[in-house]
Amino acid sequence: MNSVYPESLDKIIEFYKKLPGVGEKSAERMALATLNLPVDDIEIFSNELVKAKKDLHPCSICGNLTDSEICTICANENRDHNLICVIEDYKSAFAFEKAGNFRGVYHVLNGLISPIDDIGAEDINLSSLVKRVESLKTPELILALKSSIEGETTTLYIKKIFEQKNVKISRLSYGLPIGAEIDYLDMTTLDKALSDRKVISE
Amino acid sequence: MNSVYPESLDKIIEFYKKLPGVGEKSAERMALATLNLPVDDIEIFSNELVKAKKDLHPCSICGNLTDSEICTICANENRDHNLICVIEDYKSAFAFEKAGNFRGVYHVLNGLISPIDDIGAEDINLSSLVKRVESLKTPELILALKSSIEGETTTLYIKKIFEQKNVKISRLSYGLPIGAEIDYLDMTTLDKALSDRKVISE
Repeated sequence: MNSVYPESLDKIIEFYKKLPGVGEKSAERMALATLNLPVDDIEIFSNELVKAKKDLHPCSICGNLTDSEICTICANENRDHNLICVIEDYKSAFAFEKAGNFRGVYHVLNGLISPIDDIGAEDINLSSLVKRVESLKTPELILALKSSIEGETTTLYIKKIFEQKNVKISRLSYGLPIGAEIDYLDMTTLDKALSDRKVISE
Repeated sequence: MNSVYPESLDKIIEFYKKLPGVGEKSAERMALATLNLPVDDIEIFSNELVKAKKDLHPCSICGNLTDSEICTICANENRDHNLICVIEDYKSAFAFEKAGNFRGVYHVLNGLISPIDDIGAEDINLSSLVKRVESLKTPELILALKSSIEGETTTLYIKKIFEQKNVKISRLSYGLPIGAEIDYLDMTTLDKALSDRKVISE
């Protein structure tokens, strides 16, 4: 079918459709709304897009997304650099930073071990983690990986690497998400929440 | 709250949030996904954005969105230029073109008469419609305006303008949207569908 839109509008629609959660209809609606925005907004956005794609790169220490050599978290002297939160990708770091209570630093693995996808321990940022930990006096790791087979495998693998190396390692707790309706939860989460229950009075 | 994102990422998020149906969370997800797109996609998009905003303008005949002096519909000799579909804005034209069965041309009012918003007949593209109709031999108007107070007012006003001027005027039919569940329909639509019922056998 030939498009009913002018060509440049079509290209904008095509781009929006590549974004997560954006279907044909939403992309069209967004593209038409885009045209109604002030020209300044559009020019700033279009410059920032290209700039962001060019400038943003992994922090040379932790792998987090940054526009400088070292990210603001690794550069912050008030953070505890002995406490490393190991995460799958930089999106997790943004999530923790928004929650706002973590005072340590991060280490981005950029993937998880997944034999089925042919991703081994050497394909993710593990050797740099070992080096970082070895350079610290009182290293402590928090493994914040998702509770999938790949997440579990990677967690166990990291635990094994640092065995007998005097590194304190913990993992995130499993349980009910805050505000979740018990009867809508999947059985595995409910099982975990039950077996990991916390005593609040004895 | 200070943002957890690098500055250029923040600006991208801010832009996405201006689009319809995009909240904080979606904007973040979309911005992060944007960074993962190939640099070519981003450059093409960012150029097209500025280009579209600069190049697209109303067709000098019908007011439809176009990148040439006259839109492809007005320039098309195979369309019936005596049959003018009067619409509120250019989005309606795209909707009809997608439906694909209308062989006439359009006239974009760019608004509807709305006394409550202080929008009078002289504030929408009505005088150009009168001129267009007067230049035609056998003009026919289809009023395709929404069924709001403003749409009704504008429909009646246009009907009045062309009274005793030998112009055939029709309006879109009201009724059930295709596929709609009867019991979910609003009462006014159901009433209309009932009173405008169509005899299919006598």
